[in-house]
Amino acid sequence: MEVQGFTGAAVEAGIRYTGRLDLGVIYSKTSCVTAATFTRNLVKAAPVLDSMALMEKSREFKAIVVNSGNANACTGKQGLQDCVAIREKAAGLLGCHEDEVLVASTGVIGAFLPMDKYLAGLEKACAKLSPEGLLQVSEAILTTDTRVKVAMREVENKGKTINIFGMAKGAGMIAPDMGPPHATMLAFIMTDAVVEPDFWQQTLQDGVDGSFNRITVDGDTSTNDTVLALANGMARNQVADGYGELSQQLADALGEVLQSLAQQIVMDGEGATKCVTVRIKGAQSFEDAKRCAQTICNSPLVKTAFFGEDPNWGRIIAAAGRSGANFAPDAVAIAIGGVKVVEKGLPIGEEAEKMASEQMKKHRFEVEVDLNSGDFDYSMLTCDLTREYVDINADYRT
Amino acid sequence: MEVQGFTGAAVEAGIRYTGRLDLGVIYSKTSCVTAATFTRNLVKAAPVLDSMALMEKSREFKAIVVNSGNANACTGKQGLQDCVAIREKAAGLLGCHEDEVLVASTGVIGAFLPMDKYLAGLEKACAKLSPEGLLQVSEAILTTDTRVKVAMREVENKGKTINIFGMAKGAGMIAPDMGPPHATMLAFIMTDAVVEPDFWQQTLQDGVDGSFNRITVDGDTSTNDTVLALANGMARNQVADGYGELSQQLADALGEVLQSLAQQIVMDGEGATKCVTVRIKGAQSFEDAKRCAQTICNSPLVKTAFFGEDPNWGRIIAAAGRSGANFAPDAVAIAIGGVKVVEKGLPIGEEAEKMASEQMKKHRFEVEVDLNSGDFDYSMLTCDLTREYVDINADYRT
Repeated sequence: MEVQGFTGAAVEAGIRYTGRLDLGVIYSKTSCVTAATFTRNLVKAAPVLDSMALMEKSREFKAIVVNSGNANACTGKQGLQDCVAIREKAAGLLGCHEDEVLVASTGVIGAFLPMDKYLAGLEKACAKLSPEGLLQVSEAILTTDTRVKVAMREVENKGKTINIFGMAKGAGMIAPDMGPPHATMLAFIMTDAVVEPDFWQQTLQDGVDGSFNRITVDGDTSTNDTVLALANGMARNQVADGYGELSQQLADALGEVLQSLAQQIVMDGEGATKCVTVRIKGAQSFEDAKRCAQTICNSPLVKTAFFGEDPNWGRIIAAAGRSGANFAPDAVAIAIGGVKVVEKGLPIGEEAEKMASEQMKKHRFEVEVDLNSGDFDYSMLTCDLTREYVDINADYRT
Repeated sequence: MEVQGFTGAAVEAGIRYTGRLDLGVIYSKTSCVTAATFTRNLVKAAPVLDSMALMEKSREFKAIVVNSGNANACTGKQGLQDCVAIREKAAGLLGCHEDEVLVASTGVIGAFLPMDKYLAGLEKACAKLSPEGLLQVSEAILTTDTRVKVAMREVENKGKTINIFGMAKGAGMIAPDMGPPHATMLAFIMTDAVVEPDFWQQTLQDGVDGSFNRITVDGDTSTNDTVLALANGMARNQVADGYGELSQQLADALGEVLQSLAQQIVMDGEGATKCVTVRIKGAQSFEDAKRCAQTICNSPLVKTAFFGEDPNWGRIIAAAGRSGANFAPDAVAIAIGGVKVVEKGLPIGEEAEKMASEQMKKHRFEVEVDLNSGDFDYSMLTCDLTREYVDINADYRT
């Protein structure tokens, strides 16, 4: 796992808890063409506002500073000033310009960053950057996550090898809705590819629409969701500008990395024991298909039925019915784990439901809802709702 | 508790379980001006479709037949035929016309009614109608409810006494969205008032908009939600037609009955330990205020924080931010249990949060979110999300 030119490091800065990595730095020795998506939540954390402002001026960056334990959200002017102070300090330590540094945060909303601890930790991190250190960063960004989430792809083109490495965090407050320069999931993508800026931004947005924007744990879109994709050009490939085979290869590889990371987030959803793909088929419009998938994926009754391994399709069709999508209820077919349980809006029978229940014992399974009303499809990943989700979130701050 | 002319009875018909009341009949010896609201879910149960069709032809009814344990939803033509058979049988037993009988159901989706047991039970119920029997009906309609929900009001006008009695059920799949002739909550209102049909329908719709349409347990709108309001005229008051003092008195009393029943549903929400009023103030539009309230009230993170007695206003403001409502994040003020914890988008401090947490130990408290962006308000009732909610719904059908 190495992407030429990228190094990282993480330290225990004591941002909120002691004895765990909570501050990381990602650094590229050459300037990176940078694409980003940020949360569409109207309430945006200070680092999101700071990064959006920076990216309006430039798309060339060299470093990311990230912390967990504190979201630096709802912190007003102080929060924004803290972002600037972090960038200034990092720039001095790394020998770059403060406007070449991006800041990202995740954690509790409404608390000011402990800047003394933060800057001291930053100094220690910048002093020990290494290629292997990137894996430590992937650990430092975790909050209620139970495991590190990383993905890697290699692209071979005309004798050149291009590497893409991605890391992500996120377990709760997960229903990313990110738009051009928009998730608290955080994901950082590093590649040594040479890319044209507009191609890179569009490719990231398309990739995010097909991955992070199609997952949910609890339906709660965060104030801090951020995906940053840095391409430093050290692979010296022909520039990827949206035309030709290489651009397609790169887009495919990036898409796979994003999808892998998104899936890892749902698999590690707070308290989750199941990861379920909900596939809507035959909708009258793309929007109808999406609305239908989102409503089913966020229904507490559907999600508790997944936990109970109960093929309770009544809850699924009721969620579809309240989604706002238009369809004929008596045309609907539903299959769970590949076993059809509803046809033409009517139950197939107890035997089928027993077989579907067997499929639901698996950690991964699929629910297909065919509205049989049109030609539009949409699929989405969700998890089950468990006692443990309640435990985690009733005790989060205490 | 008596409304002139109304009787009821309930029996153990064995619809799904044995040893519990599960079939009820409500009967008025004189014809009733009838108003109704039914679920706006696209997927409507057979009794909802049957009642909607009947009410297009007439607004004069004499009886309601209701069962729990089986929703008669997603049952196709058979489900509709079963409704007709129930009405025919009831009409024969009660000595009225089949089109003067309304059927309502609540319970599991996707199972056919056990018609032999149903009709045998119906026969027993019709044989023992009494004023006191109405309380038994309020028991027979319960599913995961833990208690009976009834409310009563008296109106005095010009020497006449008018009585309004209401019963309701509902604990899960509660996010009623009911429109003119639309909730699985069920509510049946009986009054001996003389009313003009259009006034009565409009008054019911207004009352439902201010009560059942403003509560949520899990955000899942049911296929069976139904409110029926029967006015048999036996109080011989001056006709209430929307003008004058009596109409206002009657509308107020009906509103109070509906609000009491709606609140009882949230207090008895599946697994709930808290009943919370979320009041949005200062929104730019009514729709913004409503959207904001609904998103906060259905957020799993907000609801688990209520359970944890954690004044986690970060989750509240994040939910407001993703709601689609437009506002300035740095103008927002939030108070929990009357204790202000956020002003101008910024935290007041730990002391305030400690005081708010004390308020959250109560069974009932209020969250006020002032967006300070306009003149529109909206309030809504929700409950907390607990381990017990998960237990109830993971095991529902097994």
